[in-house]
Amino acid sequence: MSRYWSDIVSQLTPYVPGEQPKIDGLIKLNTNECPYGPSEKVLAAINGHNTEALRLYSDPQALALKEAIADYHGLSVAQVFVGNGSDEVLAHAFMGLLKHDAPLLFPDISYSFYPVYAQLYGIQTRPVALAEDFSLRVDDLLAVGKNGGIIFPNPNAPTGIALPLTEVERLLQANPDSVVVVDEAYVDFGADTAATLINRYPQLLVVRTLSKSRALAGLRVGYALGHPDLIEALTRVKDSFNSYPLDRLAIAGGVAAMQDLEWFESTRQRIITTRERLVAALEARGAQVLPSAANFVFAQFPGRDGAALAAGLREQRVLVRHFRRPERIAPFLRITIGTEAQTDALLAALDVVLAAAPAA
Amino acid sequence: MSRYWSDIVSQLTPYVPGEQPKIDGLIKLNTNECPYGPSEKVLAAINGHNTEALRLYSDPQALALKEAIADYHGLSVAQVFVGNGSDEVLAHAFMGLLKHDAPLLFPDISYSFYPVYAQLYGIQTRPVALAEDFSLRVDDLLAVGKNGGIIFPNPNAPTGIALPLTEVERLLQANPDSVVVVDEAYVDFGADTAATLINRYPQLLVVRTLSKSRALAGLRVGYALGHPDLIEALTRVKDSFNSYPLDRLAIAGGVAAMQDLEWFESTRQRIITTRERLVAALEARGAQVLPSAANFVFAQFPGRDGAALAAGLREQRVLVRHFRRPERIAPFLRITIGTEAQTDALLAALDVVLAAAPAA
Repeated sequence: MSRYWSDIVSQLTPYVPGEQPKIDGLIKLNTNECPYGPSEKVLAAINGHNTEALRLYSDPQALALKEAIADYHGLSVAQVFVGNGSDEVLAHAFMGLLKHDAPLLFPDISYSFYPVYAQLYGIQTRPVALAEDFSLRVDDLLAVGKNGGIIFPNPNAPTGIALPLTEVERLLQANPDSVVVVDEAYVDFGADTAATLINRYPQLLVVRTLSKSRALAGLRVGYALGHPDLIEALTRVKDSFNSYPLDRLAIAGGVAAMQDLEWFESTRQRIITTRERLVAALEARGAQVLPSAANFVFAQFPGRDGAALAAGLREQRVLVRHFRRPERIAPFLRITIGTEAQTDALLAALDVVLAAAPAA
Repeated sequence: MSRYWSDIVSQLTPYVPGEQPKIDGLIKLNTNECPYGPSEKVLAAINGHNTEALRLYSDPQALALKEAIADYHGLSVAQVFVGNGSDEVLAHAFMGLLKHDAPLLFPDISYSFYPVYAQLYGIQTRPVALAEDFSLRVDDLLAVGKNGGIIFPNPNAPTGIALPLTEVERLLQANPDSVVVVDEAYVDFGADTAATLINRYPQLLVVRTLSKSRALAGLRVGYALGHPDLIEALTRVKDSFNSYPLDRLAIAGGVAAMQDLEWFESTRQRIITTRERLVAALEARGAQVLPSAANFVFAQFPGRDGAALAAGLREQRVLVRHFRRPERIAPFLRITIGTEAQTDALLAALDVVLAAAPAA
């Protein structure tokens, strides 16, 4: 705390990302990265880039990337916004589209960055409790009445549970007066995208990232799809914040990533296959695993302490993510889907940890 | 305008960056980029990067880059903040350090992004008029009395005029109660850095970019230097906005750029040498050129219209920057220092334009 800080600074409780370990040899299943390297076409686009041109600013509109994204989704460039990872896109959406007189709604168990953005921009919020089975119920969102916006991940994080597209559409129909942001960071691993609804619902914003299903967490590319009026709001905020959030290499790599459909299809199928094997193996060990449509699973071992399990796995050099709050999810571990070999190692480590301390 | 927009969106007047032409063959002297490509060591660091690792998030603290910057300036890592270009760093400084109950001061002729940030974050401002000769007078800043912060570029943009370090220090001594941001985007071309004062003035924040003197405008790396308390404020805002603003390639390239002192020294000397030749050649053609300590010059031809000159040069395929406002600078052109050959081409184009339409 310093007298030079703006009032907001001391009120902030910044988001804490999953650990990026500096030591080698850990099996890293804690931040939902892709266990396989990105498409060769992405690597070729980056390595073949004219690095001499780095002396010049990147295209502030990143038009080539917007075009590749628009083509992929069958939308127009005016329906696409791009940013420095989906976190930046979300931040601009909070400031430009979700700050209104009524409270912003999001699930009480969800991406823990949402309340942080709300705090940063002074947005009133109203968390809506997930059902007993950790599913998001549209009726519970609608029951709140007037809202300044609604945001949720689909599939949800850290639960991995998907909301059916029919339910997303029912929400849109019943909530025409505020923006609905569907945060689809994990959608490619088993949920239905709301991108197909963009042309019919002017209040729908779909947010995506290249970090997960395109294996580019380290390149920082995210985007949003929506009515041109919503995209214009994001652009106005962005152009009042940072003209060039995407560097030349991120734009080039992002274009190639959106265009390599073959790598994309085979990689996400591989991850889904491994996930199903992991779910079965965890259940065989007594775990309760929430139904996952993501590249991670959310699992608890009844009678066991989640924090202790995570610590035990770390001793076995396997990193998973554990959230202390809210209390309902404290018994759970969020485990990223790794390679087949990493999954074997995780299961072996788990066997050691489970054997060492019998359940309470 | 849309009913879904937050109140702030329609009030914004976004910053308009200089044109990034999509057509080839233009001589681009409009956005103060470096005319020479970046250090070979930067290119090697990027091309040699393990692109497979792009599947993993970058280090959210970009520690390797902070260390390289701290080493370069003889400061500690706790005195360094890094961001996605200095524009992002400035944005966080506006929100975290410059938003207070008293007005923020900046020169009336200055970086035109400052009032945009102020509008975005609802910061009250008070522009302070430059002197008749376009210099910034510390006494005019101090004459305002209570302020919520002071920000100015040194050298100033678009004038190119430097404020002597003794004057910067006099300002710091007389203004201990609010943050003073010295925006040193162009300092390496002839001004004295205030980085040497960091250890003595806890309210001083120095902001830098790798876009100009390290020829990396297209890689998006900027940083700030200051007391750890100021850095912590920026970090808290950043961690409430976007955990990983710098991608892996930007971090690797940035480290190499800070370490290659030889490339840095020879390149900036080359640009300074060309600048001095350009100034003499412009003056020989009747121009009034403000004394420049930057990688651009700000020049007018008395009796001629600045917009018409810029348009004429564009017809000759030379791009320079012209600002319509404030009115005092409307006669001026801001011309980036190019290569020797680009400078020759600029002068030849200027001769055509000046001959075509005699002065009023």
